[in-house]
Order: sequence, then structure tokens, then C-alpha cells
Amino acid sequence: MGVGASFRSDNDWGASPQILAAISACNEGPARPYGADEWTRRVEERFARIFERPVGVLLVATGTAANALSLAAVTPPWGSVICHRHAHINTDECGAPEFFTSAKVVSSASGGSKLDPQLLEAELAWGRGDVHSVQPACVSITQATEDGQVYTAAQVARIGTLCRAAGVRLHMDGARFANALVATDRAAADLTWRAGVDVLSFGATKNGALNAEAIVVFEESLMAKLPYLRKRAGHLSSKMRFLAAQMGAYLDQDLWLTNARTANAMARRLADGLAAVPGAQLEVPALTNILFMRMTDELSSGLRRRGYDFYGERWGPGVIRLVTSFRTTPEMVDGMVAAAREIAGAKGI
Amino acid sequence: MGVGASFRSDNDWGASPQILAAISACNEGPARPYGADEWTRRVEERFARIFERPVGVLLVATGTAANALSLAAVTPPWGSVICHRHAHINTDECGAPEFFTSAKVVSSASGGSKLDPQLLEAELAWGRGDVHSVQPACVSITQATEDGQVYTAAQVARIGTLCRAAGVRLHMDGARFANALVATDRAAADLTWRAGVDVLSFGATKNGALNAEAIVVFEESLMAKLPYLRKRAGHLSSKMRFLAAQMGAYLDQDLWLTNARTANAMARRLADGLAAVPGAQLEVPALTNILFMRMTDELSSGLRRRGYDFYGERWGPGVIRLVTSFRTTPEMVDGMVAAAREIAGAKGI
Amino acid sequence: MGVGASFRSDNDWGASPQILAAISACNEGPARPYGADEWTRRVEERFARIFERPVGVLLVATGTAANALSLAAVTPPWGSVICHRHAHINTDECGAPEFFTSAKVVSSASGGSKLDPQLLEAELAWGRGDVHSVQPACVSITQATEDGQVYTAAQVARIGTLCRAAGVRLHMDGARFANALVATDRAAADLTWRAGVDVLSFGATKNGALNAEAIVVFEESLMAKLPYLRKRAGHLSSKMRFLAAQMGAYLDQDLWLTNARTANAMARRLADGLAAVPGAQLEVPALTNILFMRMTDELSSGLRRRGYDFYGERWGPGVIRLVTSFRTTPEMVDGMVAAAREIAGAKGI
Amino acid sequence: MGVGASFRSDNDWGASPQILAAISACNEGPARPYGADEWTRRVEERFARIFERPVGVLLVATGTAANALSLAAVTPPWGSVICHRHAHINTDECGAPEFFTSAKVVSSASGGSKLDPQLLEAELAWGRGDVHSVQPACVSITQATEDGQVYTAAQVARIGTLCRAAGVRLHMDGARFANALVATDRAAADLTWRAGVDVLSFGATKNGALNAEAIVVFEESLMAKLPYLRKRAGHLSSKMRFLAAQMGAYLDQDLWLTNARTANAMARRLADGLAAVPGAQLEVPALTNILFMRMTDELSSGLRRRGYDFYGERWGPGVIRLVTSFRTTPEMVDGMVAAAREIAGAKGI
Repeated sequence: MGVGASFRSDNDWGASPQILAAISACNEGPARPYGADEWTRRVEERFARIFERPVGVLLVATGTAANALSLAAVTPPWGSVICHRHAHINTDECGAPEFFTSAKVVSSASGGSKLDPQLLEAELAWGRGDVHSVQPACVSITQATEDGQVYTAAQVARIGTLCRAAGVRLHMDGARFANALVATDRAAADLTWRAGVDVLSFGATKNGALNAEAIVVFEESLMAKLPYLRKRAGHLSSKMRFLAAQMGAYLDQDLWLTNARTANAMARRLADGLAAVPGAQLEVPALTNILFMRMTDELSSGLRRRGYDFYGERWGPGVIRLVTSFRTTPEMVDGMVAAAREIAGAKGI
Repeated sequence: MGVGASFRSDNDWGASPQILAAISACNEGPARPYGADEWTRRVEERFARIFERPVGVLLVATGTAANALSLAAVTPPWGSVICHRHAHINTDECGAPEFFTSAKVVSSASGGSKLDPQLLEAELAWGRGDVHSVQPACVSITQATEDGQVYTAAQVARIGTLCRAAGVRLHMDGARFANALVATDRAAADLTWRAGVDVLSFGATKNGALNAEAIVVFEESLMAKLPYLRKRAGHLSSKMRFLAAQMGAYLDQDLWLTNARTANAMARRLADGLAAVPGAQLEVPALTNILFMRMTDELSSGLRRRGYDFYGERWGPGVIRLVTSFRTTPEMVDGMVAAAREIAGAKGI
Repeated sequence: MGVGASFRSDNDWGASPQILAAISACNEGPARPYGADEWTRRVEERFARIFERPVGVLLVATGTAANALSLAAVTPPWGSVICHRHAHINTDECGAPEFFTSAKVVSSASGGSKLDPQLLEAELAWGRGDVHSVQPACVSITQATEDGQVYTAAQVARIGTLCRAAGVRLHMDGARFANALVATDRAAADLTWRAGVDVLSFGATKNGALNAEAIVVFEESLMAKLPYLRKRAGHLSSKMRFLAAQMGAYLDQDLWLTNARTANAMARRLADGLAAVPGAQLEVPALTNILFMRMTDELSSGLRRRGYDFYGERWGPGVIRLVTSFRTTPEMVDGMVAAAREIAGAKGI
Repeated sequence: MGVGASFRSDNDWGASPQILAAISACNEGPARPYGADEWTRRVEERFARIFERPVGVLLVATGTAANALSLAAVTPPWGSVICHRHAHINTDECGAPEFFTSAKVVSSASGGSKLDPQLLEAELAWGRGDVHSVQPACVSITQATEDGQVYTAAQVARIGTLCRAAGVRLHMDGARFANALVATDRAAADLTWRAGVDVLSFGATKNGALNAEAIVVFEESLMAKLPYLRKRAGHLSSKMRFLAAQMGAYLDQDLWLTNARTANAMARRLADGLAAVPGAQLEVPALTNILFMRMTDELSSGLRRRGYDFYGERWGPGVIRLVTSFRTTPEMVDGMVAAAREIAGAKGI
């Protein structure tokens, strides 16, 4: 049985050694600041290869910055950003989208954690051309979603088609894009621009970087705005090579995919193990690195007493969230499962 | 004679090895994200020691963020921020202060690069209480200034007294605070809160960090606003330990002061060397790590041809800017001086 | 049988003759602009009498301005404004609240058109103190509501108590405050500050003025902000006497109450008449000057053909909205009822 | 000798009787709100005739709204608005341009009260394409200027050409456009779109209306933005006919030009009269309805004691401002001149 481990958040875990090594390696000699350096150029090339086409790339240090800047590039002040009510941009960014866009974030009535295309279609038509109403300007979807679910390429494409028809842009919050990608086993292009995505927040921080995210731009015209939006938001890093070195190492030799596969596999293993324990059950399928489990209080508090750390206040009675990362080990997982079994056994369940 | 070196910007140079080492060292095990970690706590303690009193500390990744957030904490939407017309916040942040405050940046008529207290007093009185006018809310001074000059403690205090009398806040843009501090040989407290500064942008990036700055808060009431302002601007780092480790190593064993002393000494050496070359003269005293020299075109273009890199378009005909850093070596300096002498000699000057 | 009449909106109808007369009467000689005139002073006195206490008063030309400025005075940029999802500020102001506050408008899950205190209590607790979440700063209720319902004094007070307990402000959108007041037969004070309202958008335009609304401020500290907020939003009228004369005549000799009583009585008469017609039924009680009726398509299109004008696309199949005003006459009402009866009769219903 | 009169501001004076009559006349029957009425349509036709081409027209209630909305339509958040340092938008709108644009207002170094094309050209080139700098997006000129001067058609055209070359828009603040127009004796088109103006704040309030201004749009693409910008700023009047009736009467039978001619003629008469008094002299030519006079303190305080009201604190020692209006009479003017003569005589000057 284990001695405890954190399943609170992928943010709890540090950086991949390869990424730390790249930071040290890029520290020789002078380099042009603000992105006019070699490392940044190479990151742009890598993204072009990954997405099988030229793309615009802007590196920033946080996911909230990547999201809010992306939204600001596609939403006029009188526009609306339509998203799921559980979307990070709606609930966890302290109003950053409103600040950056000066517009309105409208949460869809969709259930689950993915946008329902049928509801979305009606929501996209609401108020169109009526000067009293904000004008739909952008749809934002999260991939993987806040509860670890994944839009298939076809599902993204259906939303992309609705967006095109309505003349609005499609943004993807890919804070956990790598986790979603390895879960779908599709090409990155299939989940994004081929399916109608105009701009992607490509996360690296949660999956092994220190503080590096990319705004990947498929709609070229946005590149006339984004560099200025980034600068005036204080998100243009002077010593850019240190962001670029992180992102470079993250993309090199598929580290990003390897890390995501590890995290997803650990979540799967944890889900399988815990679901077999009496008093615990999976709330939604274990597709990526986030699990939601319903548990008896005895079980959850017993696990906490044994040093297993996780969130559990926010998703209704008895529901806890477990997040794995590239650093989660089989031992941590198996330890938690064994602890759960022991607690359940002691209760004679 | 040297083979060239960059004197373009302190942003061209990478990070101190001690700071890189600290980043690697903090990477063990899980840590609470968003600043609830040990490294962040220790940084707060270090700042309290340096400033000889409790202070609020918020780490961010860029100087523009530190400035704009500080200003937003002290300026209502109908307020004005008064600064020198050459202030970075006025000329080099693409409107970030306007974006974060939604207020007006008013540039003082002061000459040189420091605010003239007499002019400032009149500017602070302008429009006060008149609903048609923005209301003076904040004065922002740069230490060291954009052309490398330094406010003495008495000069800061005089401005601080004017601010107190006018009921406005005093912000200090200390992107190069370390360079100013070692130039004045005063306590950090003397240049800041004892002289009336309410909030300080404390720079580390230009002087050896990768991407770490601190907002140091002396006016406690601002701490009720700043954490929310930071989050909604996308400047709350999730894996905060990586910013904290940088700042910790920067402050540890006076690395920040050592680095600044090196940079200032190199500037002094360069100033002395070049000023002795016919056709070159110092525009303003060489107090910190930024020099402005007036040079003949032959001299400046000759130096560029020999691989010496610097800016020279922006400050009038014949004026170039030279910036040294903690990584500038005597060899780089002496090489440039020798090259200048050779060019001047060849011209028979 | 009538020849048609407009029940589209109280905005379709012009101004009371008394108000036009007051505008002409105030036109003699010079007067200080921007509110430093006699007419404005007297309006302030009248409001103090109506609300039985000193109040702050700011006249503006539109209801959206009154609402958005009120919200901006009580909501910091990281705050949230909680309102009913049908609230005018949420659906009909093209994002003005977001523009003026730079904050987030959060729509309550409450049913009907009034905020449910039990749901509100939970919504006020959400995210409190969590830096990732916008912070509840203000609750906004509409009196009368968008579907013509009225909060009793006790209902306002219950919400007021929740707001006080949560440390948030209470705003009342009183675009149709007069209609609500005469419906409740209570003192204006009972529906507002005695029940915890901090700031009121007091409408006059819909009820007989040309373009005049008042922000009535019960929380004195807001008066330090509102004059500046109004000016920078372009809502400080230079020739203020023309707004003040309107508001003065509106309040004089209870014109506002008389007009509202007429409008409400006409709505009641229309509701009674139509509800007796087969194929028509009232959706919600007829309390003020807005009715929602469910009707057969034959009935509604027949009425339209006969020249009766009303909205009917927005509230679900078969639901139309009928709005009366101070200018609606018994003849208009009876004509419509007679027309409806005739149409229903012709269908052999 | 007169008994005093106000020369403080054209805002001190009420409305033309024709405009009051038009307001009363438009009050019959229902009318579509928000500008879908007959009066608004006819105003659009009148403007098309005046400017000899189709134009977009948006009526608003204040000059600050007209200016700030115009600027917001042509300035992205990272843009700058270049204007004279004495421009109303820079000094007298409490930051409205910054609020509406979220951008930076940059005051030109030009002397006098008109933009100097040579300086402007350099200012338009500053920072172009540099991501650290706000990007010039709009030039705003005031016609007539804040000290009553007038740009000739050729002068506007020169600035218009610079703007086109720089790819920026040209806005004209025409709060006193009528006064400038009659001073130049040119067609309205010559002073505006033919000279490169993209959008004009067309004032009526100062010259006889109650509260009505028009945004006149020559660059058609702006009409896709302005209606939404106006609504979200709370500047879309519901009972629009009351603004339209004002503007209609203002334009009908050249009332606007007649009123402006009266005001300008009274200013000329006042200037001639006072300039002949020892101890008084004209500071700038008397071209429109604003005079700046330098006077001895005896003279100015003597005039004030006799009931002549004017501003005099803001433009340097001894300088007072005198503003005439369409309601200023020869008696008021001659009375003031006689009073000045008497005061000067009593001093034995």
C-alpha cells in the first residue's frame, strides 16, 4: 500500500527533465529578444510540421493568456463568445475573456461537458443583427474538456461547420490538447483546422513544461492583431528563447505525446482499479488524465487520511476529481487502489 | 581588438547559472500551484528582509505586466497616470497601461529623463475635482530611468511628498532597480517606501533571470485587488515555483546586487574608454548600465562593421545607446574601445 | 370595432404634454450647464421627498446608461453582476454592462422572471475568495420585471438581506419602476432603500418623458465615482436643464404615478377582455403594463391584419407580448378585444 | 451700458424656438423606436443633401458620445489617436476616448490650436510596425478649434492626404462645425469628405438644439460597427424621434447656418468693440464664436462686477475667454463694450 500521492492537479507536478535541459542549453551567448531568435523560429517550424501546414505561433506563459488573447483576436467588443457553462474561460479565469475582449461570454445550455450542436445552432442564431443583442462572434470548445472528455474529429467538424455557416470563429482551448490527441489517435490537423478550428490554445505547462503555451493560428488574418494584443497584455516575453526552448523540447521526439500517453494510461489504470472497489464508481468514461469518481465519504476521507490528495468540493456530493500527470507512476496508482480496497474492506463492504 | 559583442540590450543576454540551477533544484515532487508553495513563501520573506518591513509580493513573468498591474491597482478608470514622456509605460508597452487601467496616461512636460518636481506639482493640480478632466491618481517614475539616470533618495522623497499632498499614489518602475540601487549606495527601503513609493515593479529578468519580475506592494490595501487583477490578466502562473525559484536565487547571496555591480562597472569602463576616443562623447553621466554616446557616423558604422551591436535610430542624429549586462566582460568592453580607437586613428582624427 | 393600435412597446409612444410644456418653459435666459442649474437642484429635492431621505441623483438620457453606470459604480473589474437570465442588462443592452464594468454578468438559474432567493444565496457563495473566479459584487433585479411581474417589498428585502450578508450591492433596474410602485401600493422607500437597494435606475422615458432617466443613489459613497463615470461615458448632458425639466414635470403633481396607473389599468382591461376570448389565455398575471398571452395563430395573425401591432417571436410558440402605455386609451383596448372576439367567432370557436 | 450678460459658454443658452416647436410637433401617435421612424429617415436625407452624397448618420445626445464613438469605430485597442494637446478629446472628456477605444490618445507637439502637418507627418511615422508601440490609427482635428480658429479646406485636405498615406483615419470634432463652416464660406463637403475626413462629429447642441448631435459617416465600412458601439455605450435613444426632430429643425431652412452666423457676428462685434478699449487686446483672430482676450485685472474684474460672466482661469495670466451664441444680442455685446470703456476711463487709462 502506498504512502500517499497527489492527484490534485497536473499543475502540481514540475517539469520534464528534457525541458529543463533545453532551458540550460539555450543559455549560451546573446540572442535577439522578443521572439527574433533561433529557438522561436524552430518552434514555428515544428508546429508547421505537426499541423501539416504553415501556422502562426505566439508563445505565452499561461493558458489563460493563450485563451483570452485568442478570443480577443476574433471577438469585437459587441460580440459574444459562446462556450459550455463548465468551460475554463467561463468559470476559472476571473473574467479574463471579458477583460481581453470587452465582450460577453455566453454559456450554452448544453449538458455534459461538450457543446451540443443542436443547441449551439439555436444559440448562434439568437439576436443576430439585432442591435440590442451581443452578436455571436466566436465559439470556444475545450479539448479535452473540463471533465476529461474528448470531442471526436467529426464532432469538432460538425461544430466547425455550424460556425462557418454562422460566420463566427471557432477557438479550441487545448490546455490538455496532447491528452485529447493521444486519446483520439487522430492527426493534430484532423482535430483542429481540418475540422474548422481558427485558433488553438496549445497547452504545454500541464504536461511537462514550466510555463509555456502556444497560440497556434490557422486563420492567417489574425496574425495582424495578435502580436499587438499580446504585447499590450504584458505577454510578450523579452527573453523569449526560454519559452521557445521549453516548447521546442516539448515537441521534440514526441515528448508531448509520450507524456500525455503516460498520464492517460495512469488515469485508465486508476479508474480500473478504483471502479472495482465497492463504494466507488466512475462518473464519466476515463478517456484522458482526469477522472470523476463518486465515492462514499468513508472512502474519500480514508484516502485523504492516508495521504492521497485530490479535489472534491465542487462537483456535487460524493464526487471527487482525480488528475494524473506525466509524472504519475504505477506505484502511486496502485498504492491508492490498494488503500481504497483496504478502507472498503475494513468497512466490511 | 575584439571580435564584436552585443551592447543592444540587457534582454539579449540569458540567465545567471545560479538561477538555472535553482529552477532545476525546485523540480522535485509535487507542489501546490498558483503560489501556495514553499518557494514563493520564501521569496516573500526575502523581500521583507530586503525592504526591512512586511511587503506584499506578486510574481509575474514580464515587466510590462508588473507595471500595468501596479498601475491598475492604484488608478480608477477616470484617473490619470502621470509619467515622464520617455517612460517605458508611455512609449514601449503598446498601450498596456491604458488597457489595464482603462484610464489616461499623461506625460509630463519635464525635460531630461526624470520628473521635475516643480512641473509635477502643477500637473498634479490640473483639473482636480473638475468632472470634465481625468483625475490625477498616480505618478510613475522609472528607477533607473530610460537613459540610465538615477533618482536619489531625496529626489524620490520629494516626489513622494508631492504625491501624498495631492492624494495620489506613487509607482516605481524598477525594471533596472538593482542597477539604480547599487549606483546610489542606499538601502532599498530608502529609495522606495521610506520615500513614499506605494508599489514597485521589481525587475529581475534584465539582470539575470529568465522571466521573473515582482510587484512589491508597500501599501497594504492594494493586496485586496492585485491577486484578482493578476489572474484576470492571465499573469497568475500555475507552476509558480518556477518563478519563485528564479526570484529566490536572484535575491540569495546578493546575486542581484553582484550582477548589477558588474553591469554598471562595465558601462563605466566602456564610457571612460569611448569618451577618450576622438569623435565620441558621453551624452549623459554613466551611472548605471545604459550609456548614450554621440558619435560620428564613421565611428558608429565602423564599430558595427566590426561586430559591435547597438541601437542608434531613436535618440537623434549621431546618438547611440549602449547597454551592458551582468554577462558583459572586460574583454568585450576593451575590445570595443580598441576598435573605436583604431577607426578614429584610421580617419586621421 | 377598432382600427388598430400599437401594443408593441411603451417606447412607441411620445411624451406627456406636461413634460413638453416644461421643456419650453425652462428655455428662458442662460443657465449653468452640466447640472449646476436650478431645475436640476429642484429635481434632487423632489427625489429626496419621494424617497423620504437625501439621495444622490444623476440624470441621463437612456435606461441602458442608467443601468450600466449604476453597475459600474458597484462592481470592480474582477467582480460579477448576478441577475435573472431574462434581465434587460443580460439580453438587451448589447453588452453595455460588460463594457462599463469590464466585469462578468452571471445569469441566475432562477425560473420565472424574478430571482429565487434560495438559488441566489448559493450563487452568491460561489467562488468567493477563489482567485480563479469572478467575485460576486452586485445583484441586479428588475422592477417591474421583463414579463411585467413585481417584487413585493418583502421579496426585495429578502434579497437585500442576502446581499448585505454576502457583502455585495443591490441594484434595481426600475425602467418601469412607476408601474411596479402603483401595482404594490407601497411607498417608494419600501421598495428600495428600506429593502436594501443601493442604487436605482429610475425610468421616466417609457412612462411619458422624451429621454430622461435618473440614477438614484442611496449608498452615498457611490457619489464619489458616478459623476466621473457618467462624464467619461458621454452621458453628462451639457444643457442639463432640458433633462431636469423633463424629470421635474414627470415627478410634479404625481404625473409619473398617474401615467403608470393609466398604463396598468389599460393592461388589466386588455387582459380581462382577451382572456375571455376562446383561444387566448394569460401566461402570467397582469400586474403592470406588460402582458404575455398565449394565442392561436389565427387569432394573433388576425389581430395583426386588423392593425394591432405587437411582438411575438421571442417567447415561445404562440406567445405574444402586449404593452400598454400612458397614452393607451380604453377605445384602443376595447377595439382590440372586439376584434379578437370577432376573429374567434368567425372561426366558429 | 448693459446690465450684464453671460459669455461663459454656448452651453449656457437654451434652444431655438423652431427646435422646440419641432419636438412638440413630432409627438403625435406612435412611432417605431430606436431610429426606425420617419423623422430619423428624413434627417438622413437632409444630411445627404448637405454633404452632396450618401452618408451614414447616427444621432446621439452629447458631443462626447459623438467623438468617443467615432474614435472607437476607427481605432483598434492597440492603436493611437493623434490630436492637438488642447483638443477637447484630450482635455475635457474625462478619458472618454480611452474608455471607448481602450487605446491611447497621443497629443501632438503642434503649437497654436491646429495640427501642424509637418509635425504630424513625423508623429504618424513614429513606432509604425513596432510591436512595443501603439500604432497610429486615427487623427482627430477640431473644427472650429478650441480657441475658435478654423482649418481651411486646403488645410484639412493636407492632413487628409497625410492620413491616407499613413493608412490612418481622419476624424473631425465638429462640435462647432456650423461656426467653422460659415467662417470659411465653403461647402460642407469641401471641409469634410472631399478633404479626406472619414467621420464627423456634427454638433447641434451648442448652436440651438437641446441635446442632439450627429455622427456623420463618410467611410461606409464604419456603419457595420457604429450601431453596436452606440447601443452598448447606452447612446441609442429609444424615442429617437425626439432627437431626430431636433436635428431636422436644426437643418431645416438653414437654421444651423443662421444661428452660427449670428453667433460669429456677435463675436466679431464684441472683438472689435473690446479691442478698441485700452487695456484689452485680442489674443487670436476672431473667426468664429470664441474669443480670447488679454485684459488688465481691473478690466476683467470690473466687467465681472457689472454682471458680465466669462471664464478666465485656464489660459494664462490675464487671458479670458468670451463665447457668443445664437442668442447673444447686439445689446448684450454693446453693453459689455460700453462697460469696458467706462472701467478703462475711470482708471484714466
